[in-house]
Amino acid sequence: MAHAADAVRLRPVDPARVPELTDAEAAPPDGVPKGDALAEATAALSERLGALQERLAAEGERALLVVLQGRDASGKDGAVKHVFSACNPLGLRVTAFGAPSSLERAHDYLWRVHAACPPRGALGIFNRSHYEDVLAVRVRGLAPEPVWRRRYRHIAEWERMLADEGTAVVKCFLHVSRAEQAERLRARLDEPDKHYKYDPGDLQDRARWDAYTSAYREAMRETAAEHAPWYVVPGDKKKVRNYLLADLLVRTLEGMDPRPRAVDPAKVAELKAALDARLREEGRAV
Amino acid sequence: MAHAADAVRLRPVDPARVPELTDAEAAPPDGVPKGDALAEATAALSERLGALQERLAAEGERALLVVLQGRDASGKDGAVKHVFSACNPLGLRVTAFGAPSSLERAHDYLWRVHAACPPRGALGIFNRSHYEDVLAVRVRGLAPEPVWRRRYRHIAEWERMLADEGTAVVKCFLHVSRAEQAERLRARLDEPDKHYKYDPGDLQDRARWDAYTSAYREAMRETAAEHAPWYVVPGDKKKVRNYLLADLLVRTLEGMDPRPRAVDPAKVAELKAALDARLREEGRAV
Repeated sequence: MAHAADAVRLRPVDPARVPELTDAEAAPPDGVPKGDALAEATAALSERLGALQERLAAEGERALLVVLQGRDASGKDGAVKHVFSACNPLGLRVTAFGAPSSLERAHDYLWRVHAACPPRGALGIFNRSHYEDVLAVRVRGLAPEPVWRRRYRHIAEWERMLADEGTAVVKCFLHVSRAEQAERLRARLDEPDKHYKYDPGDLQDRARWDAYTSAYREAMRETAAEHAPWYVVPGDKKKVRNYLLADLLVRTLEGMDPRPRAVDPAKVAELKAALDARLREEGRAV
Repeated sequence: MAHAADAVRLRPVDPARVPELTDAEAAPPDGVPKGDALAEATAALSERLGALQERLAAEGERALLVVLQGRDASGKDGAVKHVFSACNPLGLRVTAFGAPSSLERAHDYLWRVHAACPPRGALGIFNRSHYEDVLAVRVRGLAPEPVWRRRYRHIAEWERMLADEGTAVVKCFLHVSRAEQAERLRARLDEPDKHYKYDPGDLQDRARWDAYTSAYREAMRETAAEHAPWYVVPGDKKKVRNYLLADLLVRTLEGMDPRPRAVDPAKVAELKAALDARLREEGRAV
């Protein structure tokens, strides 16, 4: 078991001191393991995440919802692929939220995300989420300010409800620098297998870099809560991002401490006796 | 147009003075029309409701959600059948909420009701609702007090979100007296065609009459809001109940004043020219 050292662990965003999200903050923190040690630590954490997910499913009482947000090419898809690779797909509910469909637009903006929330026992992952309704919607001017501004309250109260009713919520901003995003966008055009990932619209959002920074910071300030914390994940180095994210989720699930539903020992004895009797009967029958 | 006279109109529950829900309050208020006049007025209101629903659909921007709550045999089914008979079923979304399924129990209690909320342009009706999670759940002891008590806040905030995002919410308690409920339950056993409606469990809830009264009153006090008002509908006389409810919903929709989406006159002229040209072309082709 290789938990991240205390000094490099991700800490929940303090609403009174939201990080500035400078380019420098996207770099790996000092003290993170390097090379083989990083790979080994991440693999161990990923295995541990899988084991904890199994306990969450065996308990069947609570759920964990991981919200992944970040700019284009910040590594949301990559994080899903690498951090949860040791999880049982049966208990994972991954949902990517793109531009809303006409059916989704006919409902309130929380309708589609609520529908996709994980059931008890499951680990849900949102690749983008309801936060786009106070981020992209705000920055691209898709709704007037009074409309998106009151959504902070809706979101905070809705997440409180989820937490009260048994779904732990963890929100992660995968933070990349301008230079790293530029490199990743270029790579999408340089490599034929990545061409499909290139969206010319990403350039428009890149041009609004600072507006997104402000929108993210305000969203964090308005919705960070003990029961639904925000984390800023330094994302310029993919392997470090995976390591820090895996460590965070392992610690989150360890904090939840899920335990397989216990069955009363007397009941177990009774069940054993019934099973034995049945098998004896089959023995006579054969 | 036969709106109810001002004196008999239903008024939103004032959280500071929640009605006591005595048996007497289930009787028709003085001044309600009688006999043929009542039938005619209700029919006119029902037609008007249908016309307003059509305008709501033609506007396509907002929705109306009518939550019907009440004790067993309080007339929820009957109200749906009679009040909305002149509505276009295409634009109605009626959902009855019974005991939650295993899938529904695997999610928070708002999950199933949120999924059933009407899209823009539609009139949604909930026959029972999320309120059972602070009513039946409370009275039958299905969850500990801290669990159901914090739901008032969830519900109030969730309904605020719906209202902010374009869904008007109206909550109606169909109020019957003990004597009237007794008569209706007996009728269910006296008439073979109603046998299927008789649920022996209703007797247990009847035995908890006062506990339900307290639970209803507290739920109203905690969740009555200008954007999501509660109304107590005197329900001992079915025809009066229908009349008062139809009047309330007509007034609610008139307050919303839905208007078919307007199209720019220049655009209409352009569309007309294109249609004419196409029809001329078809004329030549024939």
